[in-house]
Amino acid sequence: MNDNENHTVSLTSAVGPIHAPGLAEYVDLPNSTPITFTDDEYSRRLAEVRARMASQNLTALIVTDPSNLYYLLGYNALSFYTPQMLFVPLDGELYFFARQMDAAGAFRTSWLPQDQTFGYPETFVQRKDTHPFVWVAQKLRELGVVNNFSHGQVGLEMDSYYFSPRAFEVLVKALPEYMFTDSYELINWVRVVKSPAEIDLMRGAAKVCESAMAAAYESVVVGERQCDAAAAIMRAQVKGTADFGGDHPAIVPMLPTGAGADTPHLTWSDQVFIAGETTVVELAGVFRRYHVPMARTIVLGTPSKRLDYLAQSTDDALNEVLASVRPGVTTNELADVWNTSLARHGLHKPSRIGYSIGIAYAPDWGERTVSIRTGDDTVLAENMTFHIIGGMWMDDYGYEVSEAVRVTESGVETFTSFPRQLLTKE
Amino acid sequence: MNDNENHTVSLTSAVGPIHAPGLAEYVDLPNSTPITFTDDEYSRRLAEVRARMASQNLTALIVTDPSNLYYLLGYNALSFYTPQMLFVPLDGELYFFARQMDAAGAFRTSWLPQDQTFGYPETFVQRKDTHPFVWVAQKLRELGVVNNFSHGQVGLEMDSYYFSPRAFEVLVKALPEYMFTDSYELINWVRVVKSPAEIDLMRGAAKVCESAMAAAYESVVVGERQCDAAAAIMRAQVKGTADFGGDHPAIVPMLPTGAGADTPHLTWSDQVFIAGETTVVELAGVFRRYHVPMARTIVLGTPSKRLDYLAQSTDDALNEVLASVRPGVTTNELADVWNTSLARHGLHKPSRIGYSIGIAYAPDWGERTVSIRTGDDTVLAENMTFHIIGGMWMDDYGYEVSEAVRVTESGVETFTSFPRQLLTKE
Repeated sequence: MNDNENHTVSLTSAVGPIHAPGLAEYVDLPNSTPITFTDDEYSRRLAEVRARMASQNLTALIVTDPSNLYYLLGYNALSFYTPQMLFVPLDGELYFFARQMDAAGAFRTSWLPQDQTFGYPETFVQRKDTHPFVWVAQKLRELGVVNNFSHGQVGLEMDSYYFSPRAFEVLVKALPEYMFTDSYELINWVRVVKSPAEIDLMRGAAKVCESAMAAAYESVVVGERQCDAAAAIMRAQVKGTADFGGDHPAIVPMLPTGAGADTPHLTWSDQVFIAGETTVVELAGVFRRYHVPMARTIVLGTPSKRLDYLAQSTDDALNEVLASVRPGVTTNELADVWNTSLARHGLHKPSRIGYSIGIAYAPDWGERTVSIRTGDDTVLAENMTFHIIGGMWMDDYGYEVSEAVRVTESGVETFTSFPRQLLTKE
Repeated sequence: MNDNENHTVSLTSAVGPIHAPGLAEYVDLPNSTPITFTDDEYSRRLAEVRARMASQNLTALIVTDPSNLYYLLGYNALSFYTPQMLFVPLDGELYFFARQMDAAGAFRTSWLPQDQTFGYPETFVQRKDTHPFVWVAQKLRELGVVNNFSHGQVGLEMDSYYFSPRAFEVLVKALPEYMFTDSYELINWVRVVKSPAEIDLMRGAAKVCESAMAAAYESVVVGERQCDAAAAIMRAQVKGTADFGGDHPAIVPMLPTGAGADTPHLTWSDQVFIAGETTVVELAGVFRRYHVPMARTIVLGTPSKRLDYLAQSTDDALNEVLASVRPGVTTNELADVWNTSLARHGLHKPSRIGYSIGIAYAPDWGERTVSIRTGDDTVLAENMTFHIIGGMWMDDYGYEVSEAVRVTESGVETFTSFPRQLLTKE
């Protein structure tokens, strides 16, 4: 391939980051093994999950969320389109179950010994009359696991993306000895506070994110097709930088354009960009599954007065929120800062202005735990990480600007450095 | 952006396609509207879905699968990470429910009138104590829909990716008047036979697929990083061609490499390609959500004797299967052809060798209906479309080759034209 150069941020920052993180600690991370974290890190994670299991009165937990599997095992493959699960008892061995062809190679990314990994036969895949978890339940019985836990509650991730109602019904029927209960987002809540090693990965993801947003700014051009801009962005995301090889984002770049910029989750078409129109770009940089998202709005020409007013008001409100981030503050208080600031400009926005971020797989890069919004009373703590978004979707126009941040000992670190304002191009 | 040229297929075909489809009919497709199909096409689809509902004794159907929403409505947005559903009665109006910020813009890609689209408030998003479908159930009640269907069976997509057990339990509790039943993959089964308009889109996707595989062949180079090759592939996928703007694939390129080529669903790392090693590439070209996948195996150097033998045996078996495809043949018979051919070479492969393809969203580009395998007795009919895969995952090495095909009036059309053999590079 001959298009090997990295995108670099060619814009000069008008606002600048609140804090530009150093990457010095990063160089010690092993680059030559697919197992990203140390044994100690995985042990600590499992211990924290088990402590929370105990506090929720669970004797075992069944894990299906791919992000949680990656968090606990390192397991990283696009195999979750067929059912898979990790059985985590309060004490004793973990067992992982996946489709045979995937279980055989699980050891390539997971630390779990091969003899604790089981593959269900191909004959259970996508059939109307049976389900892989019929086989898995039987295997749990053979392993002697069922009796050990039949007198306690077994947690299920009842709102996980890749755990279907049919899978749930199969488990309830096949394991009548178990008292199943919703574990809610148990592991996701453990993930909310990041370790130093995780923060390092997110700093790497931030470099990928900056490169991808620079590619977006360069490629949103009057007369060019939206799909060509999206291609340039995805290339930058997946390539990454010389130091941080890119990974696939849980959500592809979202590019609502023109009148469609009033709705947040459109992707792109083969239409060309039109002079005067606005494009909202929301994307993430990813490094070893850790996501750092960013949103910016690009206008091809001179912004309308109403867009300019909206942008400045939103930037102000976001800056006020960022200045309020520190340990001890609640998400509710951040939402208040946002609402108060917007109200001063005669604006309001009813949706949440942020959420916890970290590991992700399709179709969402949020952790589905903390939401920064009125009514959410999470107390911020050091090394929580959020995507804080000013997203204003008006009638026929819109503006979005965001920052991925870490709560520091006394304030906030923004992961990326990119002009925090309406981006204009001629 | 200055990297605007399209990838072209620079390899010469050694085997050649069985039939190279023309694209003449395609030019009439509207390029200027996000609604891809005609009103007639959507009407026919709804009528077919309702006929199948009647045959399954359903008075209503609740649709959550994003591919099925696209099939029925044209609705296309990355909004399915929060719950959404379409209510389809046997007679009467359809109602679509999504998060408020998404419902407001649904008309930009869906033909459904805005007054039949409802947005649930932000306060229902990702909360432990409530769920969006609590609000949706109440809305159905207000609309007077509940009474109309309380005496019949209401179908649920019990194995859909984006319908969780928690969502299911909420519906059961909130709508006690309903007798819910599994609709199984009702709409997916309607989708199995494609219309001429759908076939046209898949021919467009095939051009994107060829371009992406050419990019893969060019960019898998000794000493280059895997992520750089993946970036070149994704760029080609999303860019598409001058005639067919690319779309995001349901699965990112899979690139199991070296010893890891014995497992199918690994993606890529930041490691470099090593001389002598094998990389299995599986990817899809996508045009307006229609997928045409292809798998090839690239060896950087001279293949080992065992790999060469495996490749030739697998190619032979795939060719024999392709030559057997025609209306009236069963999927079971195709599996027999495959198994018999492999056995002649002293090989066997227990997993399915193909599945139905068409519309897809993450995390799978299969339709989850027809599987080409022993025991599946689907009778092939004209305009069914499949991805037929020879995937052999041995101990520490592997080989994969595939074709996306259409069943024609009397045989088979392969969508793409790319050398069907082990690809070697020095």
